[in-house]
Amino acid sequence: MRLTDQSIASVQSLAELRAAIRSGAFNDHTAGLAPGKLQCNIAILPAAYALDFLRFCLRNPKPCPIVGVGETGDPSLPTLGPDIDIRHDLPRYRLYRDGKFSDEVTDIAAHWRDDMMTVALGCSFTFERALMAAGIPMRHVEQNRTVPMYRTTLPLEGGGVFGGTMVVSMRPLRGGDVPRAVEICARYPLAHGAPVHVGDPAAIGIAALDRPDWGDAVTILPDEVPVFWACGVTSQNTLLSAGIPLVITHAPGHMLISDIDEDAALPIWKP
Amino acid sequence: MRLTDQSIASVQSLAELRAAIRSGAFNDHTAGLAPGKLQCNIAILPAAYALDFLRFCLRNPKPCPIVGVGETGDPSLPTLGPDIDIRHDLPRYRLYRDGKFSDEVTDIAAHWRDDMMTVALGCSFTFERALMAAGIPMRHVEQNRTVPMYRTTLPLEGGGVFGGTMVVSMRPLRGGDVPRAVEICARYPLAHGAPVHVGDPAAIGIAALDRPDWGDAVTILPDEVPVFWACGVTSQNTLLSAGIPLVITHAPGHMLISDIDEDAALPIWKP
Repeated sequence: MRLTDQSIASVQSLAELRAAIRSGAFNDHTAGLAPGKLQCNIAILPAAYALDFLRFCLRNPKPCPIVGVGETGDPSLPTLGPDIDIRHDLPRYRLYRDGKFSDEVTDIAAHWRDDMMTVALGCSFTFERALMAAGIPMRHVEQNRTVPMYRTTLPLEGGGVFGGTMVVSMRPLRGGDVPRAVEICARYPLAHGAPVHVGDPAAIGIAALDRPDWGDAVTILPDEVPVFWACGVTSQNTLLSAGIPLVITHAPGHMLISDIDEDAALPIWKP
Repeated sequence: MRLTDQSIASVQSLAELRAAIRSGAFNDHTAGLAPGKLQCNIAILPAAYALDFLRFCLRNPKPCPIVGVGETGDPSLPTLGPDIDIRHDLPRYRLYRDGKFSDEVTDIAAHWRDDMMTVALGCSFTFERALMAAGIPMRHVEQNRTVPMYRTTLPLEGGGVFGGTMVVSMRPLRGGDVPRAVEICARYPLAHGAPVHVGDPAAIGIAALDRPDWGDAVTILPDEVPVFWACGVTSQNTLLSAGIPLVITHAPGHMLISDIDEDAALPIWKP
């Protein structure tokens, strides 16, 4: 189900939206939903790998900004909201076994185990909303496409069994909008922060902007420059490359909608 | 040995200072040394407790801002500097066994184990330097005392076996300096960020400002208000309360001096 603008408007509260997701009534993208609430990339993994994964994320805060972490075996995330149950509260999940895609599901109650735990990372929706609010258009939104994402040669800091290179997302901007976009994004260190590169894609190992590794290519106009941000897919890519036995993530674009305000100084829910 | 202003000036480089600490030639406070370099609170603990401790710190980023984390069994901290060896590079350490003070030493090579790992947290020296640079005096520096620290009733978010209440440090400021001090400190989220409370100590459970739980009382002038910051001692207090078998910390004021610039956007060392 894709909520139309009308049906989005009819969802009167975060509680109603979460109930719709939890029941399975809503299982589509979360872009634009619950405006102002922090949305999160999610990785659920065996606790035996979690210390290494937290090390990896802490050393690579631009692609992997940790905004929440669950207890082992506990599907709640009390610092992100009072009643979150990660087994049900994403619209759509992907399961990867031994580094290979296994299933896409709308609920993981059947896959949750007592040794699993959740790590929540910030998400680009936060800075995209801030940029659009400042009058800086997002081409992939205008073209109703998924933002294009690319593997790069930008090295990551290793952490235990995890490492590799950074995945970036690209948004074309007019040259005059670049400085303001950087300033705005820098205010959101928990949502990938300022861009990591502006201009020449080859300099960061991207061969062709019209052939993204994930998402869809978008039009770049003559007066525009490609701007690259550290991307949350980095963490998924790294988890898969490590080939660990089971990882559950959100399906692309199907994020956790938390109770945290995007502009909160700290991602800690308070009653 | 206490370096005088003269002998500090004679230490020409961070490398020389680190060598002096590593050899044991220097084993005093690090306040004011290597100006502009990020200094860190240090906790070294068995990896079996580290996932819980990282959870706890991630959920309490004001008192416990993680700036670096080591691999299990590895005394280096490559993201904080190219040649750090945590077994030698603090001027002075404290060992706590089963939650009780055991030893104070200047080197921990004899106590390091293959199952130990290091967590580095930001430190108040960073914002104190920024405040003093802006012309806001620090009373405990003027009076040559250790900043006063207090237990409070401010609750912490729990993480695994760790929890409790926040420890704060107090600096008296003139009312007109408070807003600017808040703005300046907010720029340093990895060094405890903006204060957590201004004014009435009783509101956060402090009975008497002249009887700090750690450090020394300082004079508060009639035109000043007490300002309270989340304090790195919070993490030590929490580690001791949990009674884990062995924790090694820096001795108060005897911090790790990293290679990271205090004003760096990310605490990740680059050649």
